[in-house]
Amino acid sequence: MARVTKGRSKKAGLPPGTLMHIGARKVQEPKITILDYDESQFHEREVKAIEECFIFKEKPTITWINIDGLHQTEILEKLGECYGLHPLVLEDILNTEQRPKMEDYGDYLYVVVKMLHDKGKKGQVEAEQVSLIVGPNFVFSFQESGGDVFEPIRERIRSNKGRLRKMGADYLAYSLLDAIVDYYFVILEKLGERVEFLEEELVTNPKTQTLQEIHHLKSEMIFLRKAVWPLREVIGALERGESPLIQKATSLYLRDVYDHTIQAIDTVETFRDMVSGMLDIYLSSVSNRLNAVMKVLTIIATIFMPLTFLAGVYGMNFRHMPELEWRWGYPLVWAVMIGIGAVMLIYFRRRKWL
Amino acid sequence: MARVTKGRSKKAGLPPGTLMHIGARKVQEPKITILDYDESQFHEREVKAIEECFIFKEKPTITWINIDGLHQTEILEKLGECYGLHPLVLEDILNTEQRPKMEDYGDYLYVVVKMLHDKGKKGQVEAEQVSLIVGPNFVFSFQESGGDVFEPIRERIRSNKGRLRKMGADYLAYSLLDAIVDYYFVILEKLGERVEFLEEELVTNPKTQTLQEIHHLKSEMIFLRKAVWPLREVIGALERGESPLIQKATSLYLRDVYDHTIQAIDTVETFRDMVSGMLDIYLSSVSNRLNAVMKVLTIIATIFMPLTFLAGVYGMNFRHMPELEWRWGYPLVWAVMIGIGAVMLIYFRRRKWL
Amino acid sequence: MARVTKGRSKKAGLPPGTLMHIGARKVQEPKITILDYDESQFHEREVKAIEECFIFKEKPTITWINIDGLHQTEILEKLGECYGLHPLVLEDILNTEQRPKMEDYGDYLYVVVKMLHDKGKKGQVEAEQVSLIVGPNFVFSFQESGGDVFEPIRERIRSNKGRLRKMGADYLAYSLLDAIVDYYFVILEKLGERVEFLEEELVTNPKTQTLQEIHHLKSEMIFLRKAVWPLREVIGALERGESPLIQKATSLYLRDVYDHTIQAIDTVETFRDMVSGMLDIYLSSVSNRLNAVMKVLTIIATIFMPLTFLAGVYGMNFRHMPELEWRWGYPLVWAVMIGIGAVMLIYFRRRKWL
Amino acid sequence: MARVTKGRSKKAGLPPGTLMHIGARKVQEPKITILDYDESQFHEREVKAIEECFIFKEKPTITWINIDGLHQTEILEKLGECYGLHPLVLEDILNTEQRPKMEDYGDYLYVVVKMLHDKGKKGQVEAEQVSLIVGPNFVFSFQESGGDVFEPIRERIRSNKGRLRKMGADYLAYSLLDAIVDYYFVILEKLGERVEFLEEELVTNPKTQTLQEIHHLKSEMIFLRKAVWPLREVIGALERGESPLIQKATSLYLRDVYDHTIQAIDTVETFRDMVSGMLDIYLSSVSNRLNAVMKVLTIIATIFMPLTFLAGVYGMNFRHMPELEWRWGYPLVWAVMIGIGAVMLIYFRRRKWL
Amino acid sequence: MARVTKGRSKKAGLPPGTLMHIGARKVQEPKITILDYDESQFHEREVKAIEECFIFKEKPTITWINIDGLHQTEILEKLGECYGLHPLVLEDILNTEQRPKMEDYGDYLYVVVKMLHDKGKKGQVEAEQVSLIVGPNFVFSFQESGGDVFEPIRERIRSNKGRLRKMGADYLAYSLLDAIVDYYFVILEKLGERVEFLEEELVTNPKTQTLQEIHHLKSEMIFLRKAVWPLREVIGALERGESPLIQKATSLYLRDVYDHTIQAIDTVETFRDMVSGMLDIYLSSVSNRLNAVMKVLTIIATIFMPLTFLAGVYGMNFRHMPELEWRWGYPLVWAVMIGIGAVMLIYFRRRKWL
Repeated sequence: MARVTKGRSKKAGLPPGTLMHIGARKVQEPKITILDYDESQFHEREVKAIEECFIFKEKPTITWINIDGLHQTEILEKLGECYGLHPLVLEDILNTEQRPKMEDYGDYLYVVVKMLHDKGKKGQVEAEQVSLIVGPNFVFSFQESGGDVFEPIRERIRSNKGRLRKMGADYLAYSLLDAIVDYYFVILEKLGERVEFLEEELVTNPKTQTLQEIHHLKSEMIFLRKAVWPLREVIGALERGESPLIQKATSLYLRDVYDHTIQAIDTVETFRDMVSGMLDIYLSSVSNRLNAVMKVLTIIATIFMPLTFLAGVYGMNFRHMPELEWRWGYPLVWAVMIGIGAVMLIYFRRRKWL
Repeated sequence: MARVTKGRSKKAGLPPGTLMHIGARKVQEPKITILDYDESQFHEREVKAIEECFIFKEKPTITWINIDGLHQTEILEKLGECYGLHPLVLEDILNTEQRPKMEDYGDYLYVVVKMLHDKGKKGQVEAEQVSLIVGPNFVFSFQESGGDVFEPIRERIRSNKGRLRKMGADYLAYSLLDAIVDYYFVILEKLGERVEFLEEELVTNPKTQTLQEIHHLKSEMIFLRKAVWPLREVIGALERGESPLIQKATSLYLRDVYDHTIQAIDTVETFRDMVSGMLDIYLSSVSNRLNAVMKVLTIIATIFMPLTFLAGVYGMNFRHMPELEWRWGYPLVWAVMIGIGAVMLIYFRRRKWL
Repeated sequence: MARVTKGRSKKAGLPPGTLMHIGARKVQEPKITILDYDESQFHEREVKAIEECFIFKEKPTITWINIDGLHQTEILEKLGECYGLHPLVLEDILNTEQRPKMEDYGDYLYVVVKMLHDKGKKGQVEAEQVSLIVGPNFVFSFQESGGDVFEPIRERIRSNKGRLRKMGADYLAYSLLDAIVDYYFVILEKLGERVEFLEEELVTNPKTQTLQEIHHLKSEMIFLRKAVWPLREVIGALERGESPLIQKATSLYLRDVYDHTIQAIDTVETFRDMVSGMLDIYLSSVSNRLNAVMKVLTIIATIFMPLTFLAGVYGMNFRHMPELEWRWGYPLVWAVMIGIGAVMLIYFRRRKWL
Repeated sequence: MARVTKGRSKKAGLPPGTLMHIGARKVQEPKITILDYDESQFHEREVKAIEECFIFKEKPTITWINIDGLHQTEILEKLGECYGLHPLVLEDILNTEQRPKMEDYGDYLYVVVKMLHDKGKKGQVEAEQVSLIVGPNFVFSFQESGGDVFEPIRERIRSNKGRLRKMGADYLAYSLLDAIVDYYFVILEKLGERVEFLEEELVTNPKTQTLQEIHHLKSEMIFLRKAVWPLREVIGALERGESPLIQKATSLYLRDVYDHTIQAIDTVETFRDMVSGMLDIYLSSVSNRLNAVMKVLTIIATIFMPLTFLAGVYGMNFRHMPELEWRWGYPLVWAVMIGIGAVMLIYFRRRKWL
Repeated sequence: MARVTKGRSKKAGLPPGTLMHIGARKVQEPKITILDYDESQFHEREVKAIEECFIFKEKPTITWINIDGLHQTEILEKLGECYGLHPLVLEDILNTEQRPKMEDYGDYLYVVVKMLHDKGKKGQVEAEQVSLIVGPNFVFSFQESGGDVFEPIRERIRSNKGRLRKMGADYLAYSLLDAIVDYYFVILEKLGERVEFLEEELVTNPKTQTLQEIHHLKSEMIFLRKAVWPLREVIGALERGESPLIQKATSLYLRDVYDHTIQAIDTVETFRDMVSGMLDIYLSSVSNRLNAVMKVLTIIATIFMPLTFLAGVYGMNFRHMPELEWRWGYPLVWAVMIGIGAVMLIYFRRRKWL
């Protein structure tokens, strides 16, 4: 997901169901991993050809196929044919500019969410699209690149800790979603630190870069909202459990993810409020500093302009200027000048400019 | 669709159902093209008189009549009479200032959408109204001018690739809508590039034109919203499939268009957020530059005003000014002046103005 | 409808149903016109006393009584008694500060809408309240002053063109509403021209009056919204056809008016967006001009202050100032001065101030 | 109702139903008035002890007990015991910081609304809480202080004019609410005058006090909204007539009050829009004036700095300054100076600064 | 609840139901208090081990277990096991960054709310999470630290005053919620005082700290909203009484708490409006002061620049300057200078700058 949608236009004019990868190609070679398990056993394997996965189709065990890298569309085509996936689903998986959504196709559910990373430059948050297909005994997950937040889940399957191996494909899907949403908080905390740091900097020492940093954070928030808000609907739809593929027991866990999503949204909105409040403060403090600068200028000008004028007067070359001949003329002028300066200073102190 | 509604007022006072073209006349001569097909055969023809189309009315094949150019109201009148279209529908087709909408007249559906172009000057987005009438075995499309985004669909009909020839009039209507919505992304990407370019310019080198460019982009967004937002309702109403004219299978495809519409809306809203954030940044940076300018002025004035005053003092012509007679008076004054300047500079450095 | 509600307070403390005209008295003498028609015949008459109208009550023909001028409350009283109108309806007709609304009293519908005029000074939009009472075979319309947008409808009745004479009282009511809403677009187009003119002026040559003009337009928008927004509900309620007084066939036509209302609302909202965007632009360009002014000042000061200082130095009267005796002292000082000025100019060019 | 909730915290920790007066004690001594009537007779009496009222409890006549002053909680306690009022109702009556609300307790309805006054200093609007308890044959009204808007209703009961004596307790309650809402318009018109006055002042002669006046009006609006908005729900709930205590006939009248409430809300919102627009205009005109001030400064400085410099040059004391010896040197310098000044003035005129 | 969510990320990757305390450890040692009562008797005890509480499980009396301090997760584990609490509930209790919510688990209700304190530095509001588990005959309350608002409730149980000992566990839960919400008003009143103080300071003597204080108050409001808004839903859900655990009688009391919640929300929103209005006023008054400063500068410069220029002219050393020889040259120049100054002053007075 780029900041600004890109590449989506390439599809204009093509018939629906045309498989074409939209988005940046992020890995060299797609990587297909398969994890097949039930309570008593499990297999884990990285396969070269997607056909190797099809043997698990008829087995009652839970099959989790994870594919990293989407640009080889023929992998998807074969998988879709074998499992009877709708062409529009395949098309959507390849279009990584999707909005998070959930679609119920009867035999399976299609879920699109955004996985957040912060590997980007300057701590910029990046999003990667993760598509899930949840069937009665299988879960397929599609990622744009390797390196995900699912490792702890694989570990739990391997070690048979907790509930995971005992429950169905819906629970596995829940676990994947939970892992993704949980990672949002890692991202949000880092953002929170930047927000707090910025807030302090704003109060103690606002600089021109502060403005740009505020602007960057604001864009980040717009970006995050786009990823997080629709998730609420997605998880909510899953939780309401209208699909027979989601069991009651799992539904309770999905409610928990739902709560986390709401919390993530809340946090993003709070950050937004804080950041947009900062801009006001920044503007105010810029105005304040302008005021301070102008006061210095005005004080200097108001004191020295009359004095310079006076000096100018007694620098005139008129033949008849009686003051010039006075014995105490010069000290007197100094006295007048110091007097004027003092009066001005007192005036400015009264006006609280000093 | 002009930026500001125009010509609509000409109709005030006329009875409902009065056929009158509202909007700019965009083509010389209306152009009527007919495409009649079923799975096994297809006819394509450009006709001179609309009456030539009526022979297809009783045939079971799918008939797609496309009319470019709306100012010859009698064409519409005849078509409406032959196919029994409601006078209000005909009136609405001719009023190109319509808001996108969908109306179910029982025997046929009437759909109005906006097709976007960017052929306008300075990359300005332009919208053209496209009206669709979808019946059990016919689709009529009405455009203001030639040059549309439907060419790939004609090509698919001719070459009998994909599903199009196998399915009904509703699928054809879907294909037309899909083509229109897909083209939105072409427009949006170009806009996105302008937004990004502007954002960079704003940070590196904000100019007065930047402000006008922001203003233009903002107007563009207001304009786009008007075209895109109502589409959501239109496609949503079609997708919910309350009309028997829309089949279940097509409904699934319409959901896909619906998703694209939401995505387009999302993108427009994101651009809006970004552009309105830019204005704040622009204003802040203008203030910042004012601050910088004022600091220069203040520094110069604060350094040279006291010095000029001092020079003025020793330019006075008092007879009794002992300093003037001193051997080292002149170098001493220079020393004092340099001292004052240095103190000022140190003061400004302390205040971080330098 | 004044900009700010006025005169409404006179009623505080009076019992409900008290007939009292609220609003400006706009005509000398109330004018009562009656138009009675069916498909085959029609009568048109201006009557002096409202009692003359009562003979039509029992006839099956459609009776349209139009009253211009509301301050003679006894006319209304008699009419209400004869046709059994609820006292609250009569009270509401006289209160011209009403919000547009629709009330179903079973035997008749009571509709309040705003008719817009632009006869006001400086192109200011003015609104006049129009009340309609729609019964099974009668329509009463009440206006604050003469001069309305109903003339084309009267003409259509007289000439028996179109559907009007063939259909019931509900269709007549629809026609009146349609005429009122159609006239909104005349007003909106004029406003649109002012908005566009202002926008251009803003970019090319912003003046202090521009600000006031923006403020006026903004107030106009607030005012228009109040008139147009509630109309949506009014027409929507009529269109949903819950009252048996509205026939199915007319309902379709009301949907058309509903669409126009939405379009009018859309246009008002677009104008609002444009006008409030203008204020931002205005403020920015004021800041920009301040910046330009300050740059001129700063450049002048920065160049001439050091030079004046230098001139001041060599205007001092110290006895021992070796430079003064130099042969080339004076040209040298000029050279230094020109040098300083040139350096400053280069510095400003570098900073892009020139 | 103070601007900021006060005294509410005293109740923290007390059990529910604890009777404690929250709010300022506004009268010396509570005043209890009883008005008992049916169509044929009526009694009006001011009683010292609340027990005197209880004799009316079993009578079929309508009893209206009005209590001004809430700090003697035992009055309420006795009344509550006699008529079986819920402790929470009694508690709410005493808490004058309530939000307007309506609660249906089966045997009676409990209604809280705000009565507006403008007796406050500087035209500030003040609100007083009025609680109504509406039973089958009684209405109790509780006010914080004497001096209310109910006098015309008492008069109507005494004189047996209109419908009031013929109808039930619900109609009496309606009349009280109507009187309160009608008085809102008196307040709103006064506010409207202040808004209009301010608007004119803003355009013709904005002062620093204008800013504070805008701020005050804004606070007033926030305050009014809090009183008016919830009323909509309150009256709406009454009007929908879900309680058997409200008869159909009265329901129609309540709809009228509902409309007035909407109109009051509309007016408050319009004022809010106008006032917040004013702040923008104020800020813009402050900026404009700053611009004007700076132009004057810049023009003066730009003209006189070069001239002073020139004068300074020929005030230098170099021995070899050929110009000083010229016969026409002095007039020449004057000519040059006037020339420079004229060029500057032309330049400023071109830039439209003059 | 920290300003910015912290520590939440530690859980990313852990399986659901993992018990881990998130949030600051606020007490040394968890403190467990048990209060068991019915109408006739009551026991109060502080226990060391949670197992001591389990003996009350089967008794028909109401058991209230309160736990201060959450970091010893094994306490919760044992309690959960004994009473059959869902692992997700236990997890949520330990995660003190929860959003207020209510969950119905059939056998018991799980309620999370925020308890506000102002013990923080500089009057900063702090929130502590309170979790309630409400069963048929037990209430468990979990707090982050000791020192709560429940003492009056304990006192009421001990002294058997009021309804508390006569009613069920739902009424106890209501009492706890009521105590928490009541304390909000204590906090809100203190905030209200700060708001009012700030408002006055803003008008009389705005300082740079005022800006920071406004910013702090704004953050406080964002923070409060997060605590208060969701409460509405929580109490609303309890009040609607869909759970058999909440009796009808209690439901009425919950409506009262609901009203208080709405009132608290209202107050927070009013404060928000007031505080954000303040920022506008602050900015305006900063601009106004800048204007005042600039006027002083401009007046001084405009008066003294021409005078200094004149003095400079007669300080020139041209040989032929006839004015210098005039007998009354010097006084004449003074007269001219005073004249210029006077004209300038009159000009400024006319422009209302003085």
